[in-house]
Amino acid sequence: MRELTVIKIGGNIVDKPEALELFLNEFHKTPGPKILVHGGGVLASEMSQKLGIVPNLLNGRRITDYETLKIVTMVYAGWINKSIVAALQRIGCNSIGLSGADGDVVPATKRSPEPVDYGFVGDVKPSQINTSLLISLLGRGICPVFCAITHDRNGSLLNTNADTMASSIAIALSKEYYTRLVYCFEKDGVLYDADDNNSVIPLITRESYVNLKEEGAVSGGMIPKLDNAFAAIESGVSEVCIKHATNLNKAKGTILK
Amino acid sequence: MRELTVIKIGGNIVDKPEALELFLNEFHKTPGPKILVHGGGVLASEMSQKLGIVPNLLNGRRITDYETLKIVTMVYAGWINKSIVAALQRIGCNSIGLSGADGDVVPATKRSPEPVDYGFVGDVKPSQINTSLLISLLGRGICPVFCAITHDRNGSLLNTNADTMASSIAIALSKEYYTRLVYCFEKDGVLYDADDNNSVIPLITRESYVNLKEEGAVSGGMIPKLDNAFAAIESGVSEVCIKHATNLNKAKGTILK
Repeated sequence: MRELTVIKIGGNIVDKPEALELFLNEFHKTPGPKILVHGGGVLASEMSQKLGIVPNLLNGRRITDYETLKIVTMVYAGWINKSIVAALQRIGCNSIGLSGADGDVVPATKRSPEPVDYGFVGDVKPSQINTSLLISLLGRGICPVFCAITHDRNGSLLNTNADTMASSIAIALSKEYYTRLVYCFEKDGVLYDADDNNSVIPLITRESYVNLKEEGAVSGGMIPKLDNAFAAIESGVSEVCIKHATNLNKAKGTILK
Repeated sequence: MRELTVIKIGGNIVDKPEALELFLNEFHKTPGPKILVHGGGVLASEMSQKLGIVPNLLNGRRITDYETLKIVTMVYAGWINKSIVAALQRIGCNSIGLSGADGDVVPATKRSPEPVDYGFVGDVKPSQINTSLLISLLGRGICPVFCAITHDRNGSLLNTNADTMASSIAIALSKEYYTRLVYCFEKDGVLYDADDNNSVIPLITRESYVNLKEEGAVSGGMIPKLDNAFAAIESGVSEVCIKHATNLNKAKGTILK
């Protein structure tokens, strides 16, 4: 079975030109077919503030009214996505920037307004992803670069969680490829002690994850990320890895199996 | 030889939701493989003003400093491009939004700073367009939707004239397809009398164009548009048509041969 790597980077890398350049060089060096999914929260908040729209976050999730949808689409699908593609082309990595609306690759369902109305926010089901265009692009040696904007097939664009976008794409393609999903962030992996960058946990299994949560070693924003990762493994993804963005092909980070 | 239609719409259609919806329905009805190229100037100027950047136009062309490049990329490649794709998906027209950087389809050369420094503005040569990805997408029944943003292959995005983008793409594909190029705008065609919408000139040839210019029937912004159109015909495009955006498959407009 062919191998595929789906790599997700967050806004904290996208916002730092030097870190982004280092990461993109590592991305290009990653062997075999690969897909990039990027976030981009900080720049969207800055743009909102410049335009006089106060960002409205609830439990770390952005409430997306129409004006905010316009801003996140401009920032994520426009500036960030195309800048990444141009930077990849410069180093000889042929890539194509996509939203979920393009080629109808990632349709989504607008989230129910109950109990909380998140506005133009969409949830993705891996079974609804149209993989044939992605397989064709990968076969031509082109790397798809996704922003986390989807559509409802009824004319509306939708803001989507980039972690879920990455895991859904990885799950959908795991029928065709031996698929690795890599979450890149600003630490070397999942740390046993959040203050000690040398305390990377090399392997987390379903069983050890329960213990790590009980011990409090894994908490806060890491819990939905790891829940999401284990859900991906149960749905066909071969391996999930959490590691530093600039160590993509060097340090091992934390492997989830 | 297979047929292909390359259709260009300007900012004046893109900015009017009702006119855009009418146009997109007509676009979907256009038989055979097709490509859309869109402008979007008004929204970019509005966004510049909201962000406190004064639009700087010289002879109708935007001077594109780095902050302006960011804005036009956000507006053209982000909001407008993805909104058009989502609207086309709604009516069952599978489409994919592209800039020239995506798949390295339309590389450009940054314009010389002499005699006028237009900033991040790129000029396109039809011979440099990579047609193979476009042919593959068209073969899958997917309509490419281009914004007029290109790249210099050295990491910079570049703002590009949408008319030239459309004619360059049409010329490049005319080796593979019998290619029609359609410029849509807010009038029924090239008018003999600018104030009389019933004075559409049905056919303009190279010879009659010279006379029309001498008579003053064709002047101003129409001259570079028609020069561009005749250059496309000389370079392999089979037919250029200038017509109203909402009459795409109805009225004949002005045909240039």
